[in-house]
Amino acid sequence: MRALFILIVWLLPHFLEAQKQPNFIIIFADDLGYGDLGCYGHPTIATPNLDRMASEGMKFTQFYVAANVCTPSRAALLTGRLPVRSGMAGSENSGNVLYPFSTGGLPQSEVTLARALKTKAYQTAIIGKWHLGHLPEFLPPAHGFDFYFGIPYSNDMFGPAYRNAPPLPLYRNKEKIEGNPDQRTLTKRYTEEATRFIRDNKNKPFFLYYANNFPHVPLYASDDFKGKSRRGLYGDVVEELDWSVGEILKTLKELNLDKNTLVIFTSDNGPWIREKQEGGSAGPFFEGKGSTYEGGMRVPAIAWWPGTIQPHRTTAALATTMDLYPTFLKLAGVPVSKSTVLDGTDLLPVLTGQKEEVRDEIFYYARNKLYAVRKGPWKAHFITRRSYTKEPPVEHEVPLLFNLEHDPGEKYDVSADHPEVIAEIIKVRDRHAATLQHVASHLDGGYKRKEENK
Amino acid sequence: MRALFILIVWLLPHFLEAQKQPNFIIIFADDLGYGDLGCYGHPTIATPNLDRMASEGMKFTQFYVAANVCTPSRAALLTGRLPVRSGMAGSENSGNVLYPFSTGGLPQSEVTLARALKTKAYQTAIIGKWHLGHLPEFLPPAHGFDFYFGIPYSNDMFGPAYRNAPPLPLYRNKEKIEGNPDQRTLTKRYTEEATRFIRDNKNKPFFLYYANNFPHVPLYASDDFKGKSRRGLYGDVVEELDWSVGEILKTLKELNLDKNTLVIFTSDNGPWIREKQEGGSAGPFFEGKGSTYEGGMRVPAIAWWPGTIQPHRTTAALATTMDLYPTFLKLAGVPVSKSTVLDGTDLLPVLTGQKEEVRDEIFYYARNKLYAVRKGPWKAHFITRRSYTKEPPVEHEVPLLFNLEHDPGEKYDVSADHPEVIAEIIKVRDRHAATLQHVASHLDGGYKRKEENK
Repeated sequence: MRALFILIVWLLPHFLEAQKQPNFIIIFADDLGYGDLGCYGHPTIATPNLDRMASEGMKFTQFYVAANVCTPSRAALLTGRLPVRSGMAGSENSGNVLYPFSTGGLPQSEVTLARALKTKAYQTAIIGKWHLGHLPEFLPPAHGFDFYFGIPYSNDMFGPAYRNAPPLPLYRNKEKIEGNPDQRTLTKRYTEEATRFIRDNKNKPFFLYYANNFPHVPLYASDDFKGKSRRGLYGDVVEELDWSVGEILKTLKELNLDKNTLVIFTSDNGPWIREKQEGGSAGPFFEGKGSTYEGGMRVPAIAWWPGTIQPHRTTAALATTMDLYPTFLKLAGVPVSKSTVLDGTDLLPVLTGQKEEVRDEIFYYARNKLYAVRKGPWKAHFITRRSYTKEPPVEHEVPLLFNLEHDPGEKYDVSADHPEVIAEIIKVRDRHAATLQHVASHLDGGYKRKEENK
Repeated sequence: MRALFILIVWLLPHFLEAQKQPNFIIIFADDLGYGDLGCYGHPTIATPNLDRMASEGMKFTQFYVAANVCTPSRAALLTGRLPVRSGMAGSENSGNVLYPFSTGGLPQSEVTLARALKTKAYQTAIIGKWHLGHLPEFLPPAHGFDFYFGIPYSNDMFGPAYRNAPPLPLYRNKEKIEGNPDQRTLTKRYTEEATRFIRDNKNKPFFLYYANNFPHVPLYASDDFKGKSRRGLYGDVVEELDWSVGEILKTLKELNLDKNTLVIFTSDNGPWIREKQEGGSAGPFFEGKGSTYEGGMRVPAIAWWPGTIQPHRTTAALATTMDLYPTFLKLAGVPVSKSTVLDGTDLLPVLTGQKEEVRDEIFYYARNKLYAVRKGPWKAHFITRRSYTKEPPVEHEVPLLFNLEHDPGEKYDVSADHPEVIAEIIKVRDRHAATLQHVASHLDGGYKRKEENK
């Protein structure tokens, strides 16, 4: 009898924990390249916290964003849908992203992760960069976030380069609290706000979306990190970001929340190679931000959930930021409306090791145009364009074909050898196109497309 | 009294262990690139054993070989000296490496690691590729190795392409036991021989040099690995090599030798990019084997010694294969003759975390010509040449200058901004040149240099 009682007392917290809704944290870097972390092969950027996170969890090597620039990539992350469905993709006549003078933003018809999780009483916060509209009706409080601390767009969007945009605004909830905040302090302030939010909500389920503004240019590190890395200022900034991730994980462990919190670290698009040594590295991949080559859209991604994700896992499963939406919702017990077309797939079977893969197709868009399609290891480029040049897009009558798993650098076009693969990918493309309806771009709004895509 | 006795009995093995000479294992891959392992960022080659070895030990990110091709690189590893000192560098009129029809080899004036360690009663073995001369006076038994099982040169060196060279010989000690062995079985056979050697010598100090012939072309994997990797045959071969490393480490753990064995895994030079998808990846670096750009000479390197090397270490300390010679000799208590000019530096302070670096210069030779010099983060190219092309070398009146720690891909020449750095590197070069004496190349021997460097 006594033994049974002890057994029950011992098991009870396990049952309770199993039933508890897990917390979710997404840490989203800005313009961080595939090759910029130690565990992804960077030789001189030291990222011990992210390396440890990877070795305690799962490292993805074929993880994609839905767009090669900021605004549409972030819209896809928060909606589980391709930006071309939500109107958050640019068009021929718009910019690629939202600007300080834009008037558009994410429409209310889109249900963000935060709004969906609110239906199950999650506490929700975004700390950092929003970039889905900065008029009041588009800001985070209008999209399901209980708490907001950050900058509504990119950290370079002020001054003459952006039609004399106002000083860079820093928001706390609905209020603009500073103009041009000292960017050297941003990562520290974000970290403080993020860890405070976690502490404040240690007894409630929560969703924290921590979208650091860096390593997007202009680069700023605090005095504790400036001049400390071997990689110059870019490395300093990434090392401070790594420190910040370490603080988050440490806080979770301290509060005993680690076994009940799924943490995802990833980036919004590839490195901005136009910025040369102030931009990052795509590692073995070709091109970067703004491109539909792998360097533009394949990003580092680490998933961490001690006890649920086994340590020392590396997976080559195809996955995208859009998969987080159905994954989180399923874990939280939130149903998705049948009328919503989702582009994400539940990733849990991959995270737990139950399945090796859950999807085998990836669509590469530039603005609202489909440039390339991946099916299994094969990627067909129907249109290609070098990023940030004046060269126009090139349409390929016979698409370029690469076996990405053999040839990650997209060096050896094998289209002539595999017409049957191209035929199959054309079918995939056409099936995909049939699911699309025309939606006007919310990014339109007075910004004349310049020759260089911005 | 009894407590004291227990304490002594408990401590005794610790004292004995501390005094015991450590075992050494070098696992040397052939043509494996910096970017070819999971822990160095390869997206689709799965190397769980090497990744685990790295997370249990120390991963080097700025580790170099002394030459961009096989023979001189191996000579440097075993002697701690630049090949230009031992005559193992090619000359203008020789090949780059030894061939089946070559008559030269490593001279007896050079004291190999094996010969040096024999003076302290180490048991010594080489399993795999030798490539330092295949006439009896040059083979491993003549250079301090008690046991030899392997092939005396590269696994492609037979048949018409090499002046109708004889079938690829497989040696056991001094005896040629097979011609053209089934290369699909090589990694398995090497692994069996290596683990048997470890078991047979579990009570004696030993040095095992396990120089696998792969992933040098032609690529062969056993049935257990063929067709299994996502990366094609190249990946299959690397994954089998990873398995083999796992078997070695497992054997050490089983025999309780792990805490007394320093294991180094590295590669002889960069990937053979001429071989396209049958060659490897230099990751973020430019060029490969045969070149003095980083892709040719910076290699993956992992050091593992549980208890002495702390886990989860990544170091950007400059290091070279030549450093292993003085490191091992010091640990084994073998003095180095004062008259021997060594190019290696004791790495132990880096391995134990006592020092952040022990050297700040690297010399990049192609054959017997100094092409480039690194001092701290700076690398000056005095001569450059693309590998395996007909383009002749380009001599630079003002050397190209790269900050390798900011710009690992050698993309941004900053020579115009840093004349003072160039002036300093020229001094380093001249000081280095003053230590050299002319030594005729032992690689000469009837092989007319072809336009394409081989």
